[in-house]
Amino acid sequence: MLSQRVVVALFGIPLILFLIYLGSVPFLCLILLIVTLALNEFYNLVQKHGYMPFKVTGILIAMILAVAAYLNIDTRIFFTVFIMLLLLIRLYSLKIEGAITDIAMTILGVVYIGWLLGYVVSLRQVPLWGREYTFLLFITTWSVDNSAYIVGMNMGKHKAVPKISPRKSVEGMIGGLIGGFLAVFFSKWLFLPQLDYIHCWGIGLALGIIGQLGDLSESLLKRDANVKDTGSLLPGHGGVLDRFDSLLFTAPALYYYIKFLL
Amino acid sequence: MLSQRVVVALFGIPLILFLIYLGSVPFLCLILLIVTLALNEFYNLVQKHGYMPFKVTGILIAMILAVAAYLNIDTRIFFTVFIMLLLLIRLYSLKIEGAITDIAMTILGVVYIGWLLGYVVSLRQVPLWGREYTFLLFITTWSVDNSAYIVGMNMGKHKAVPKISPRKSVEGMIGGLIGGFLAVFFSKWLFLPQLDYIHCWGIGLALGIIGQLGDLSESLLKRDANVKDTGSLLPGHGGVLDRFDSLLFTAPALYYYIKFLL
Repeated sequence: MLSQRVVVALFGIPLILFLIYLGSVPFLCLILLIVTLALNEFYNLVQKHGYMPFKVTGILIAMILAVAAYLNIDTRIFFTVFIMLLLLIRLYSLKIEGAITDIAMTILGVVYIGWLLGYVVSLRQVPLWGREYTFLLFITTWSVDNSAYIVGMNMGKHKAVPKISPRKSVEGMIGGLIGGFLAVFFSKWLFLPQLDYIHCWGIGLALGIIGQLGDLSESLLKRDANVKDTGSLLPGHGGVLDRFDSLLFTAPALYYYIKFLL
Repeated sequence: MLSQRVVVALFGIPLILFLIYLGSVPFLCLILLIVTLALNEFYNLVQKHGYMPFKVTGILIAMILAVAAYLNIDTRIFFTVFIMLLLLIRLYSLKIEGAITDIAMTILGVVYIGWLLGYVVSLRQVPLWGREYTFLLFITTWSVDNSAYIVGMNMGKHKAVPKISPRKSVEGMIGGLIGGFLAVFFSKWLFLPQLDYIHCWGIGLALGIIGQLGDLSESLLKRDANVKDTGSLLPGHGGVLDRFDSLLFTAPALYYYIKFLL
């Protein structure tokens, strides 16, 4: 299990870092791929619940939102057309029963995954330091996730939120926080020398807390749907959504930290 | 029934027209009131379905979206905070069962009512002719609704979509379309002389079709929830949502017509 996890990471991490380095269309394609896979997993999850989300429409609009973030154009019109379109499609099919829930599930998937992941694209498009900030985002988010996992596995004694995620421990969460700080300071040393120490602490704290809350939020949704992993595409990592759940929360957090506080 | 309807209209229509005339904060307050009442009705509707939407949070964020439209500021951050907040509130309460549906319903209400009604505010804020365009929007939407209602009542023979709205007839829908054209030409004559004839036809056709589709969409949601009216606040008119359902669709339609085609 752990070794598979390591092998996937050994190939996946350099590939993602390389695509961040390239930026522009190759990086956009990576995000589009993640959005598509994660959203598909989410829709499968709610289908187990008995709902029938509009998969294709939802994935298409989520991709459009990511492309709009890339082009830095206003997403308002796309999202509006999307809402009206869902209602009209359902109207056209004359399928009344479940209309409210099916439409609601489709929208939830789009905003939870498409809307939030759009911030990764926006961050990469930040002028001047977008590339470095995106490196910082991924490295810190990964570090939080893995430090929490490793510390929790080895030292976890006190369960943190047994109802929602039985394997999470207080020790693991503290480990996640420390891992976040280490990653930010490492990034400052390696490629972001201009980042003030006060902001290293600020970003480390913010991403360390928010990343773990993002992870827990996805656990809440999975637990409600009675599934353990959202998929099995990445051996040892669960599904794509499992692997990027923290990023859904850390991406907007870092984007607005940089926009308003830096 | 009809007379109550007329009395409410006799007081309501001049009041709304006066608030459109004033614009700025008084008009914003009118829209905030409509958003609050309509969204509350929507949440009551889904509660009958057995879901527990986050009423207060949903109504608050819908109001914030309307205020953001008024100030012409980007709504992206508010909507993002809202999505994350819903997950975190639910996480904090440790209430797992129904998490997905309750969150999805809350978001659906906000986007369906708050997001779409924000366009009424945006339209009023359009430079130079915002007041006249907003008059045009309300007058045309009302005319479509009422022409369809009156023609349908008196001449309706062929049922249009019996599964979704048993009382709607083909005759009524054609009446709605004609009512839309008449309202646009009337508005051109009275206060929008600069509107080209080609655009009178275009706007009349667009609002006549889209307004009736908005009406039908709300019927679809009501039918799925097994209710006839969303409320009884406006005697003879049903609920606030019943009265403004067409506006949810005509407002963005007219806003983008003006933005892109005029």
